[in-house]
Amino acid sequence: MNFELDPTLAADTLEFVSFELCDVRLMNDARFPWLILVPRRHAAVEILDLDRADQDFLWSEIRFAAGVLRAVYRPDKLNIGALGNQVAQLHVHVIARFHGDAAWPAPVWGSGPARRYEHERDKRLDELKAMLAETRPSVR
Amino acid sequence: MNFELDPTLAADTLEFVSFELCDVRLMNDARFPWLILVPRRHAAVEILDLDRADQDFLWSEIRFAAGVLRAVYRPDKLNIGALGNQVAQLHVHVIARFHGDAAWPAPVWGSGPARRYEHERDKRLDELKAMLAETRPSVR
Repeated sequence: MNFELDPTLAADTLEFVSFELCDVRLMNDARFPWLILVPRRHAAVEILDLDRADQDFLWSEIRFAAGVLRAVYRPDKLNIGALGNQVAQLHVHVIARFHGDAAWPAPVWGSGPARRYEHERDKRLDELKAMLAETRPSVR
Repeated sequence: MNFELDPTLAADTLEFVSFELCDVRLMNDARFPWLILVPRRHAAVEILDLDRADQDFLWSEIRFAAGVLRAVYRPDKLNIGALGNQVAQLHVHVIARFHGDAAWPAPVWGSGPARRYEHERDKRLDELKAMLAETRPSVR
């Protein structure tokens, strides 16, 4: 079966870039620089569902995404999590957190309604893409 | 400098087992089967602070801990997260989640006060240790 992005994830996120294993999407919540990595593997729910090679790709892509967020935003903390209690399709959150952001020091999940991007969307995508281009020219 | 376990982590968790890189501790909250992996590296805060070899050890140990929780508890979902907003010392949560558990479907963080282990503590540690012994006899 082919991979299809979960409709809730599709509705909550914006297309950003495609890595070797994962679609990397921007959470449509302007309160936090927040990437979602979704391995393009049909029916994957747990990290343990991936084969070993994909698990290693995932780790590499998580670290790469975290490095990009760190380079662009200089956050006080990175938050990385694979939860999936509400959306079963395997996805990993990589989030730049700041002292005093809308949820600090709590996790972003359950921190109230998202503030959808308006005019800041292109700026955010552009600054992320610029850093990607700098650090990984071969990204598709 | 030598590694020293953060005092808050020490107070909130119970000693369980030592992996190659991480001390694996049991969160002292009987509501959830919940492991905390703490890399024994001085001053590590972010996963990106670890060198590449340690990052790969960490990934391997996260997956191993997740596999043990899955084998013992057959959870509906695994939650894996590196947050560190409240305790800076790098630590990774690996949690077995169930439909209808005390926080479901929200994350465990912020789900109210822990219920400290009493008589169930030894049972939980024993069942985890038994599975560890079965799957990884060389654990120290």
